[in-house]
Amino acid sequence: MSANITETTVQPSTELFIKMVVSNWELQNSRLNGLLDKLTDEALATETAPGRNTGVYLLGHLTAVSDGMFTYLGLGERLYPQLDQIFVKSPENSGLEKPSLAELKQYWAKVNEVLTERMNAMQPEEWFKPHSAIAADDFAKEPHRNKLNILINRTIHQGYHIGQLVYLVKK
Amino acid sequence: MSANITETTVQPSTELFIKMVVSNWELQNSRLNGLLDKLTDEALATETAPGRNTGVYLLGHLTAVSDGMFTYLGLGERLYPQLDQIFVKSPENSGLEKPSLAELKQYWAKVNEVLTERMNAMQPEEWFKPHSAIAADDFAKEPHRNKLNILINRTIHQGYHIGQLVYLVKK
Repeated sequence: MSANITETTVQPSTELFIKMVVSNWELQNSRLNGLLDKLTDEALATETAPGRNTGVYLLGHLTAVSDGMFTYLGLGERLYPQLDQIFVKSPENSGLEKPSLAELKQYWAKVNEVLTERMNAMQPEEWFKPHSAIAADDFAKEPHRNKLNILINRTIHQGYHIGQLVYLVKK
Repeated sequence: MSANITETTVQPSTELFIKMVVSNWELQNSRLNGLLDKLTDEALATETAPGRNTGVYLLGHLTAVSDGMFTYLGLGERLYPQLDQIFVKSPENSGLEKPSLAELKQYWAKVNEVLTERMNAMQPEEWFKPHSAIAADDFAKEPHRNKLNILINRTIHQGYHIGQLVYLVKK
């Protein structure tokens, strides 16, 4: 009897947690997709504020960071590891050759498509295991630094840059 | 026996999950506090980009939105409900009289201090109840729209505006 009570009252919340986090991530993806639909190529090539990153750089940056989640979450090989050097380790004006905007938009869509598929195939308990970049000792002390926490963190990071990208929308 | 297994494997994740969300919110608060320490009053009075909100307005906006969580989370009366009209319902140049920057900084600190106290006193299961602005019918269909989800959502919102506030830091 008590096993049943525990199952019905506690068990659903594990999947509910995951749904809460994944749906917030999807919401940020939808917001960025909405912005990409709205902004012209010319607008995306513009600085978000004087002397700050362009829309194109930020799209490359967000694509690279989301692509990095394949590794953090243990979901297989990254799709576009070459983006890291250009959009994460180097600033906008590094002189490194960048993919075209059309390519970046395609990469962005593909990363989200494949990530979504693989996240949906994860077992719920898998999300509460350590992510790939935390040492076992640290995880033992700080068990909240799990895979689901990576997704929360990356969602906030995406919100941060969407706050900058909206400055490309004319008032 | 099966009740024990369920308790040890599932029960801790409810508190862990709350810790994950609350610690991400605290991290965003720390980031904003770090920025406030770094920026002069003059810098905060400046537009984050040409024709966009100033740092002062965004601080008022974030304070008002966090203050609104007292209501959403059922944690008592708001501390500064008067901020809503100025910083949420009206744009920057509404002509409404604004509190001084010193007052806003004080309100910001106080809202976070009292929210933290009251969040810490919440029972874990309380976080999974509907927030104050969702109808019972909707919650029955979408149980992820609970109080903890409000905190995730507000944390992302704060990240969004921090992405804009960093533009006040000179390069």
